[in-house]
Amino acid sequence: MSRDGQNDVNPDFLKTPPASSLWQDKDNQESHTEQDGADFSSIFAKDLLPANNGEEQTMRFLMEVFEILLNYIRKTFDRTSKVLDFHHPHQFLKGMEGFTLELPDQPESLEQILVDCRDTLKYGVKTGHPRFFNQLSSGLDVIGLVGEWLTSTANTNMFTFEIAPVFTIMEEVLLKKMSTVLRWSQDESDGIFLAGGAMSNLYSILAARYKRFPEVKTQGVASFPRMVLFTSELGHYSIMKGAMVLGLGTDNVIPVKCNSRGKIISAELEASIIEAKQKGFVPLYVNATAGTTVYGAFDPLNDIADICEKHNLWMHVDAAWGGGLLMSQKHRYKLTGIERANSVTWNPHKIMGVPLQCSAILIHEKGLLQNCNKMGAQYLFQKDKLYDVSYDTGDKTILCGRHVDVFKFWLMWKAKGTSGFEKQINKCLELAEYLHSKLKRRNDFKLVFDDKPEHTNVCFWYIPPSLQEMPESAERDSQLHQVAPKIKARMMEEGSLMVGYQPQGHNVNFFRMVFSNPATNKSDVDFLIEELVRLGKDL
Amino acid sequence: MSRDGQNDVNPDFLKTPPASSLWQDKDNQESHTEQDGADFSSIFAKDLLPANNGEEQTMRFLMEVFEILLNYIRKTFDRTSKVLDFHHPHQFLKGMEGFTLELPDQPESLEQILVDCRDTLKYGVKTGHPRFFNQLSSGLDVIGLVGEWLTSTANTNMFTFEIAPVFTIMEEVLLKKMSTVLRWSQDESDGIFLAGGAMSNLYSILAARYKRFPEVKTQGVASFPRMVLFTSELGHYSIMKGAMVLGLGTDNVIPVKCNSRGKIISAELEASIIEAKQKGFVPLYVNATAGTTVYGAFDPLNDIADICEKHNLWMHVDAAWGGGLLMSQKHRYKLTGIERANSVTWNPHKIMGVPLQCSAILIHEKGLLQNCNKMGAQYLFQKDKLYDVSYDTGDKTILCGRHVDVFKFWLMWKAKGTSGFEKQINKCLELAEYLHSKLKRRNDFKLVFDDKPEHTNVCFWYIPPSLQEMPESAERDSQLHQVAPKIKARMMEEGSLMVGYQPQGHNVNFFRMVFSNPATNKSDVDFLIEELVRLGKDL
Repeated sequence: MSRDGQNDVNPDFLKTPPASSLWQDKDNQESHTEQDGADFSSIFAKDLLPANNGEEQTMRFLMEVFEILLNYIRKTFDRTSKVLDFHHPHQFLKGMEGFTLELPDQPESLEQILVDCRDTLKYGVKTGHPRFFNQLSSGLDVIGLVGEWLTSTANTNMFTFEIAPVFTIMEEVLLKKMSTVLRWSQDESDGIFLAGGAMSNLYSILAARYKRFPEVKTQGVASFPRMVLFTSELGHYSIMKGAMVLGLGTDNVIPVKCNSRGKIISAELEASIIEAKQKGFVPLYVNATAGTTVYGAFDPLNDIADICEKHNLWMHVDAAWGGGLLMSQKHRYKLTGIERANSVTWNPHKIMGVPLQCSAILIHEKGLLQNCNKMGAQYLFQKDKLYDVSYDTGDKTILCGRHVDVFKFWLMWKAKGTSGFEKQINKCLELAEYLHSKLKRRNDFKLVFDDKPEHTNVCFWYIPPSLQEMPESAERDSQLHQVAPKIKARMMEEGSLMVGYQPQGHNVNFFRMVFSNPATNKSDVDFLIEELVRLGKDL
Repeated sequence: MSRDGQNDVNPDFLKTPPASSLWQDKDNQESHTEQDGADFSSIFAKDLLPANNGEEQTMRFLMEVFEILLNYIRKTFDRTSKVLDFHHPHQFLKGMEGFTLELPDQPESLEQILVDCRDTLKYGVKTGHPRFFNQLSSGLDVIGLVGEWLTSTANTNMFTFEIAPVFTIMEEVLLKKMSTVLRWSQDESDGIFLAGGAMSNLYSILAARYKRFPEVKTQGVASFPRMVLFTSELGHYSIMKGAMVLGLGTDNVIPVKCNSRGKIISAELEASIIEAKQKGFVPLYVNATAGTTVYGAFDPLNDIADICEKHNLWMHVDAAWGGGLLMSQKHRYKLTGIERANSVTWNPHKIMGVPLQCSAILIHEKGLLQNCNKMGAQYLFQKDKLYDVSYDTGDKTILCGRHVDVFKFWLMWKAKGTSGFEKQINKCLELAEYLHSKLKRRNDFKLVFDDKPEHTNVCFWYIPPSLQEMPESAERDSQLHQVAPKIKARMMEEGSLMVGYQPQGHNVNFFRMVFSNPATNKSDVDFLIEELVRLGKDL
């Protein structure tokens, strides 16, 4: 098809669908396609591009889809819409009216495909809704979303510069920028974007293992002394998973005791290291956490760095959740000492609001990742290429193909600037302080920590009237333990908001509120408190 | 914002952009936004939703982006457009006119963001172009693309049913369907979608290791006998990476010799296993390949299954590339015996045309993955939830969060039916046979294998006139070795097509043609041959 030919389209179509149709809520109009002249009931996937003469139908179909997506985006930001429309697993398996998950032998019409798209969104969870607080990742950043759409449309893979020229260079630019934010010198920094923080943490252990015993790559773990890892007893479970995967064993991950605020006690760490040495083990690695998952605590990084230097351990900082605070001049002091780490996990898909997934492992030694992971497959990494093959970064990973997770982040950085991220993050922290100060003044809520939050985690119990006068006891704890799950079940059925809960140590089930959604305002914090009371006051 | 309020939009905007603008090629019109009344030069990310009154600007901006994407999609399928517009890494780093990858402190306007989106696509590689043959994954499936757009818009994570109710059930439905295709009984099958085939292969080794020595999870590899893995000498390098990561060591991966067609020689496999046993090692696992990366060879699965049964080894089939042939009644016999495997890697993102990424590991034992990988983090996997928590599948992975890779695949299956995938795959195989038979008749090309291709891989040398009369010799090989890289460099500079090359064993650099793009037709095969001659005849 020539450029000239591109205007040779059916003139009737040029009138439909009108742009205005994008503004109407169509979700409840089953047969709206009739109304605007587009009938997809007799059109099938095979009629779309690359089919001959498929262009017009393809564009019409994509317009319909786009309309569905725009409607969803509008509803996401609409506080009068539900966060979710809850249904049980067996209901989906059985099928709902007009929406069956069964996979057919014969194709279904595009009309049905559009219905399926609408229903998939309808029965999902609006993770960008201003009242979705269930996860550390929330929000629907419009620029990030555009980045994801474009990435999907480009549909390429990160293994070589050859097939992802722009994206591989963008990754390099982003990694350099992030290491500047970490205050690492650029000629000593390296890194890669991976499928989530657990994977980034795994790479940090892998790099530490290789750095100490390079022959572990060929000979395996069994040829070397027993290696021991240390992490906060409140650190993320991915360190355990990493040790399991890497053949080190979860028994060789030593949990280090925390103080009352959930931070590693440095003296305990050092004592554990000395004990492991005395047993003849090799203390290999410490995972310090900058922003624990539940409490949002920051481990004392400088103290830990001192200990790691003294005893020759690899210092990793899991800043998956806390890393975003580095973008804020006001809050970055909480991560002081991170510049001394050997590796850092930092997930822009958390408080920076980048769409899922976007996680980086940053390594404070150039070339280590490549040496650790490379296998040099000839069919991918030819040395006799046209261009500088040092940009073929695929051998830095333990994967082969790798999803493009950088473009959305790059585009957001362009659109917001460093200053935009800073504002966004400061706002989340302010909301956490606002919630904390409100709860502190109430008798029907009890905070897990009285002091001001360091991150946006605010942990608390709602105490229903039936328990307010009851003295502290095992019986009261047992009853309180059931309050959060019951409220959670009710809020999911109503779809009015979503917030997580869990027990931790001796603390029975409590709510963990987190702020990472730029759409959330103080009014939503007020709503949260009122709604928890409404849902739980009869318990 | 209320539903009523949704129609309260600026009436001027309803006229712009007109639907017809979606049909015009705007890439070369720098200031086209003036022409249709939308000016984004003074609008910034902060003005979009969730900003107050941000809805109208958000919708306008998204319309502009959508237009850019539609233009790109049209061009992707347009044979007169280039496959790529090649630039070197240093050019991107230095910046092109109007397109700099540098990340700013202050926000850039949405006008610039739109320019950046256009330029990112402009300088990328059109992996869906009918003449993009560089990778096992190619094509731009419109339904799959819609699936990815919707997935991005839903922006959720796979760890729990709670926040991905529809998607977790879709995963279950897809895995069951795939195991039916494998002819596994459903109550014995399990699996999960992962970030690519290398990761799926890693999980298979992980599961095999755990099945043999469950305590390896807690105690690590060092407490157990030396485990040995076997794979084809032409198998994928991810088995080596897996062994490295898992602490088994690459020395403990035994490459098994292949016959002249690139298939494992069963007798060699058995001899290697017996030898390892005699050395006191534990032969743990065999990786059989169904569709090798370069030659497209299928290992003899039934023979390998017999050996694995006899010697008690885990049988994995890496069908990342070949798995799609199971969808074809005509070609599935090539994978006979796969039903006896303990695990299978199958990448729908390859010949089935699902957008990147979509890879499944299927395990022939219910519950094994969960037991192997679970850590039971309380903050995610509460047992006191409202619903049947067996659908919280997040603990089956070694990740925490996991990208939603299932929706696009599910939607494609609905839209094409099993029969649609079958047709698509049969067509790719027919094209491979067409190319093979054409090359066989020519003197200026030489096939690596004379017999008919089993998969869509067709491996061959182009022999320029200067080498055609030269007798076989080291000197001729050395010259021939340089032909493919030189042609490849020229084709990239011209942007007319993309096809990969590599050496393998004693074979000097040869082209590996593969068909997985539904947009490719016989005319493109004819073009490929003519173009290689045109680019290489003076070498």
